[in-house]
Amino acid sequence: MLMNPNKDTQLCMSLSARPGNFGLRFHNHLYEQLGLNFYYKAFSSQDLNGAVAGIRALGIRGCGVSMPFKEACIELVDELDDSARAIASINTIVNTAGHLKAYNTDYIAIEQLLQKHAVPKDSTFALHGSGGMAKAVASALRDGGYANGLIVARNEGAGRALAHNLGYEWQATLGNARPQMLVNVTPIGMTGGAQAEDLAFEADAIDAAETVFDVVAIPAETPLIVRGRAQGKRVITGLEVIAIQALEQFVLYTGIRPTDEQFQKAVAFARQG
Amino acid sequence: MLMNPNKDTQLCMSLSARPGNFGLRFHNHLYEQLGLNFYYKAFSSQDLNGAVAGIRALGIRGCGVSMPFKEACIELVDELDDSARAIASINTIVNTAGHLKAYNTDYIAIEQLLQKHAVPKDSTFALHGSGGMAKAVASALRDGGYANGLIVARNEGAGRALAHNLGYEWQATLGNARPQMLVNVTPIGMTGGAQAEDLAFEADAIDAAETVFDVVAIPAETPLIVRGRAQGKRVITGLEVIAIQALEQFVLYTGIRPTDEQFQKAVAFARQG
Repeated sequence: MLMNPNKDTQLCMSLSARPGNFGLRFHNHLYEQLGLNFYYKAFSSQDLNGAVAGIRALGIRGCGVSMPFKEACIELVDELDDSARAIASINTIVNTAGHLKAYNTDYIAIEQLLQKHAVPKDSTFALHGSGGMAKAVASALRDGGYANGLIVARNEGAGRALAHNLGYEWQATLGNARPQMLVNVTPIGMTGGAQAEDLAFEADAIDAAETVFDVVAIPAETPLIVRGRAQGKRVITGLEVIAIQALEQFVLYTGIRPTDEQFQKAVAFARQG
Repeated sequence: MLMNPNKDTQLCMSLSARPGNFGLRFHNHLYEQLGLNFYYKAFSSQDLNGAVAGIRALGIRGCGVSMPFKEACIELVDELDDSARAIASINTIVNTAGHLKAYNTDYIAIEQLLQKHAVPKDSTFALHGSGGMAKAVASALRDGGYANGLIVARNEGAGRALAHNLGYEWQATLGNARPQMLVNVTPIGMTGGAQAEDLAFEADAIDAAETVFDVVAIPAETPLIVRGRAQGKRVITGLEVIAIQALEQFVLYTGIRPTDEQFQKAVAFARQG
């Protein structure tokens, strides 16, 4: 499927504790569709310093960074893009002649999706979660002009800190709040997880909302999304998030923006893995 | 041509100042023929330490090492195979769960070729050259039982040292010697070099020999080989050396020995690059 490799083939890679297939299938499929002399390899590692030394020494063009490296990686790069600086969390490294610049394409993807789905800026929202991805999503909401937010998190320290830093409120549970947009950034609804069958928000809160947004990508149709979709809500899925963040990585690595048709084909191919 | 990559794909690589296409075409073609989930990438680097750190951190399965790293690399690995220890020069690293063992498959290839071509052990020989590859070739000759050797090298220090270490004689030029085997381990006859059209030994010495052995691989038919072949001498070419050393790397990396037909096909494919 890929073109014949030669000595000029450029390597891009991902680095995570437990790699999946989506990213490498997405990128390699686009390389093939567009006839680019690139190859994408997923690596797992427990040695971030050695991995980044290798990226520099071997001239690896780009690297997607996943858990648990998104924050520790910051000290190892040379420059932070705006998308990464504000949230102090990166998911992408671009290596240009040995200079490593880091980005957060999750943040970029969230920004784009809020625009694409035309979520009204005056929507009230609740965001469930307080981890690294919650920070990226909440920051994109704040920077996108969504001012009326509630962070819902059992972890009081992390939840309060996240809310405080961005000018939102914090509650341990949703309580009586019935915001217009519900955003899930917890593992609730994720395949294989302990709460795979659960709704990330109370059923009546979903029924009262206008928009449901789930960052869980596997499955794309989480219980939250299924319930929201059945009621004709505006829905934004985690599949959209991982696809757009991968697309933005592709553009950063290759300098080429695929057409929407090429992008959709690559997403469909990547999901089959 | 390669099978669809996935998260379990293993990476092998080469490391050199100026990579070529032969190795990567050879290995990738065999991966494809044998249905192995491997990918081979050629890297150039000027940072050996960082590159080896990357090999460890990323779990890269194997690495071919070329100029100028063959000696400096020794201090960075965990174990030396016999093929590398005696000559203090390596060309292959095998990474087994983070343990790096280094080999010299040039040495192994020379040993095999002397046997395969049934060069009589009592042959007198002259070896032209005194660099790293000359050390590997001369060591394989010595260990193969070829006791009557002359090292021919303009560089007196390196030539004498090589000869002394292995129990051979040294001369700056061939002079009146007319040995039964002539071995070229200089760049004489190499495409693109200053002496591409030259014979690596005097014409009458070639005519008097029984065996000519040239380590120059590009072209395989150097002036030395052409003259020897035209006279019906036993000839051993540099193409055989690079093909067999690559084959032995393949076996070390994958644990699988291709059939001779698969090997020949891979050599033919690799040469087209």
